[in-house]
Amino acid sequence: MNLEAGWVARCGRCLLLASLVLFAAAFSPMQASAQSGNGDNGTVADFLLDNGMEVVVIPDHRAPIVTHMVWYKVGSADEPAGKSGIAHFFEHLMFKGTTNHKAGEFGARIAEIGGRENAFTSYDYTAYFQTVPPDALETMMTYEADRMRNLVLTDAVIGPERDVILEERRSRVEGSPDALLDEEVQATLFQNHPYRIPVIGWMQEIKELNRAEAVDFYNRYYAPNNAVLVVAGDVDPDDVRAMAERTYGKVARGPDLPPRMRPQEPEQNTKRTVTLTDRRVSVPSFSKAWVVPSYHSDQPGEAEAIDLLSEILGGGTQSRLYQELVVKAGIASGAGAYYDGTMFDDTSFTVYGSPRGEADIYAVEKAVDVEIRRIIKDGVTDMELEKAKKRFVRSMIFARDRQSSMTNIYGSTLATGGTVQEVAEWPDKIKQVTAAQVQAAAAKYLNPDISVTGYLLPAAEPAVATEAAPMPSPGDPAETESGLPDPVQADPAHTAPAN
Amino acid sequence: MNLEAGWVARCGRCLLLASLVLFAAAFSPMQASAQSGNGDNGTVADFLLDNGMEVVVIPDHRAPIVTHMVWYKVGSADEPAGKSGIAHFFEHLMFKGTTNHKAGEFGARIAEIGGRENAFTSYDYTAYFQTVPPDALETMMTYEADRMRNLVLTDAVIGPERDVILEERRSRVEGSPDALLDEEVQATLFQNHPYRIPVIGWMQEIKELNRAEAVDFYNRYYAPNNAVLVVAGDVDPDDVRAMAERTYGKVARGPDLPPRMRPQEPEQNTKRTVTLTDRRVSVPSFSKAWVVPSYHSDQPGEAEAIDLLSEILGGGTQSRLYQELVVKAGIASGAGAYYDGTMFDDTSFTVYGSPRGEADIYAVEKAVDVEIRRIIKDGVTDMELEKAKKRFVRSMIFARDRQSSMTNIYGSTLATGGTVQEVAEWPDKIKQVTAAQVQAAAAKYLNPDISVTGYLLPAAEPAVATEAAPMPSPGDPAETESGLPDPVQADPAHTAPAN
Repeated sequence: MNLEAGWVARCGRCLLLASLVLFAAAFSPMQASAQSGNGDNGTVADFLLDNGMEVVVIPDHRAPIVTHMVWYKVGSADEPAGKSGIAHFFEHLMFKGTTNHKAGEFGARIAEIGGRENAFTSYDYTAYFQTVPPDALETMMTYEADRMRNLVLTDAVIGPERDVILEERRSRVEGSPDALLDEEVQATLFQNHPYRIPVIGWMQEIKELNRAEAVDFYNRYYAPNNAVLVVAGDVDPDDVRAMAERTYGKVARGPDLPPRMRPQEPEQNTKRTVTLTDRRVSVPSFSKAWVVPSYHSDQPGEAEAIDLLSEILGGGTQSRLYQELVVKAGIASGAGAYYDGTMFDDTSFTVYGSPRGEADIYAVEKAVDVEIRRIIKDGVTDMELEKAKKRFVRSMIFARDRQSSMTNIYGSTLATGGTVQEVAEWPDKIKQVTAAQVQAAAAKYLNPDISVTGYLLPAAEPAVATEAAPMPSPGDPAETESGLPDPVQADPAHTAPAN
Repeated sequence: MNLEAGWVARCGRCLLLASLVLFAAAFSPMQASAQSGNGDNGTVADFLLDNGMEVVVIPDHRAPIVTHMVWYKVGSADEPAGKSGIAHFFEHLMFKGTTNHKAGEFGARIAEIGGRENAFTSYDYTAYFQTVPPDALETMMTYEADRMRNLVLTDAVIGPERDVILEERRSRVEGSPDALLDEEVQATLFQNHPYRIPVIGWMQEIKELNRAEAVDFYNRYYAPNNAVLVVAGDVDPDDVRAMAERTYGKVARGPDLPPRMRPQEPEQNTKRTVTLTDRRVSVPSFSKAWVVPSYHSDQPGEAEAIDLLSEILGGGTQSRLYQELVVKAGIASGAGAYYDGTMFDDTSFTVYGSPRGEADIYAVEKAVDVEIRRIIKDGVTDMELEKAKKRFVRSMIFARDRQSSMTNIYGSTLATGGTVQEVAEWPDKIKQVTAAQVQAAAAKYLNPDISVTGYLLPAAEPAVATEAAPMPSPGDPAETESGLPDPVQADPAHTAPAN
């Protein structure tokens, strides 16, 4: 099971997987192919079941497969104070037995028919998916609807799974200097909002998670009226509706949840730095982050402008940062920007860089700052804006090529307060952004005196090369086409549920 | 009404009131005169009323006055997430009318008899006090017991008072660069614990505080079984008991509160900085802080060792920092250390300094670091340890000189999980601390690579001198004798309740 925090930690502030970083910059989940329809594949259907469950069906008849995803509108930012990690913990528990099926039965069934499955948890949502032949879709729905309400949550189930998660944290976070740094950058950047708390949870709080809390969490958040079903593939929307009614439709509506009001950020006034010096680091790197609006929290048009700012400043090999620092000056082995726009509340905008040859990290940071100031002062050219818009539009077309991209775009948008209509309108809204809006966004949000910079530095002693994380070259075109990284691809070790 | 956060903001990380800082270092609230008794003044009495209210009586017959304080075991760190400021807000509301007395009546009565009153809110407690002639004590108790349960909390009361508090925040925090910096240093130092949130609350959350939340807060926390009554003065404990039974004793017990379990700090791994550059700053300064155990959260003996470490390193003019940086090297106008030991959970240890003449702030910081490393490497001498212990013991004797010091020592100790016995045993525990323990505390907690440094810097343009806060010379002996700063003295503008 994946943890989206893992993606952030690996790919984010610390830029160790720059190709994944690139996805974020070049490929907002808001980007989607559905304008009025879905190309030659038919119209995207969107309806509600009687119990409040939203259903989105994206027809895609190119191959006899279907991707079935359920997105719960609950993530780590919804956790009670002091109970960090319970959203992700619960994701693991969903692979345990129910009153109708033994643990492992669902997974075995998927494996038997050659399908794939996984799940992931992020700040705003938790999602479960399977990719299977279309004739297995109703079976998937039956199992998924079953575990929405019928999990058996005994201490015998909870205890061992908590140990699995503690081990996961040890390996993914404590074992990774960039993940450790990312956690403290995030905790420093967000002074009040729960995005400051790691998705996987703080070690000391994971240790205390117990059955009563898991049951409360399940009863509160795992209900059809807090979930979105997204189905993409070789299916007919009417058939999907009938199947959904026969399966999910039988699950009783859960409690009406209050609006998702998380503590918001105060006005920030300071420039902050967070430095991790670690022997396991071989190549130093830095990232600089700001709190900026998301697609859900912004004023109209702002998030689109920030998306294009991110693309022009640091999205891939055509971006200013890459061209100036990596290609022309040759002082950086990598440099870029990314923006996590598909979030419920105000989110982060990040620039990053890593030195090359004799250059030191502070020279790279300075050069990045120069490029930011240049946009604030002189704006962007119409030509680079047009090119960035074209790259975005093209990426939409590529997104259609993977069912998982499409389901992720719809699911993450709907789970963070967006609508199918917003997904459809996104390309037009991108086209309407002006150069002046991009400049204004940079001037408004990228204040160098109010920012958080993370430095990942090698310890004085030489690092052990084999322990250092690899630094893929940014701009891997395969990744720019993928939309949201395919969770299965991103973590092949977890294609089978953890036990 | 005072806000203890105000003291911290003014005196703390930003060292602008170094004499108050000194109090914190040289005068732990755990220090008290009561060993088995209270010198010639009689034994400290400690008992419970039937409704669960704890009462401490400290006889002091030198003058015909009495200090009457009620401490509620609730502070800003107990606030629900997203409702910051409600503890302090509630402190203001306590000066409004009750079902028995109009707003202002209590205060007018105190003024009439020449008494003084005030209140303050901190992370772990909220306290109310009056100093009056002994024959007015029962009247004070009557009024105080009345407002414990009978406040009239209408929207007409809540709205205007919220505006008062918003103005208080604008003036005390937004109007003060050091307070602004302190807030963000604190939010950076504590990554998870609510000590990260300002006592006065974040502006955007204060704005949303409403009647329903105030009523909930009142019903939950303002009850005799969540309060400690501390009376010091020219009174007989048996008489106080009888009066307390006649007044507070009639207030019904409140709900049983669960243990105060706040989210705890994760393991920290990074070195962080927080920089505020502001035109109102004329003299730059820095502070460096670490999360360390408090008297309530420590392993036996640790807090005492940290207290002595703070005293030897940076407590007043005899300390290493002052002697080395101010006296010998002449590079600092002030330098010191302080430790907030009387806290419920893990707290902070801070060193600070400000340059003088041609020296820059980073040279001062480096010199402070050298002194810390020297203690970690070579420890402290037996002679300086003995001297520090003597200063502590002497300060206890001085503490007896002010009723407000004594009431503050008992009240803050009892409100943060301590006992009267711990107050009594504190001097002996201090005497038992060894040089090795002081060195071990420095080595364990003052890791330069895991710390948070705040820099308060003048903007490029020259500061307006009149706006800069004054920098009193550290080590004002009057303050070292005062125990907790007298809240009335600390903020004379607030001796009468607001508006």
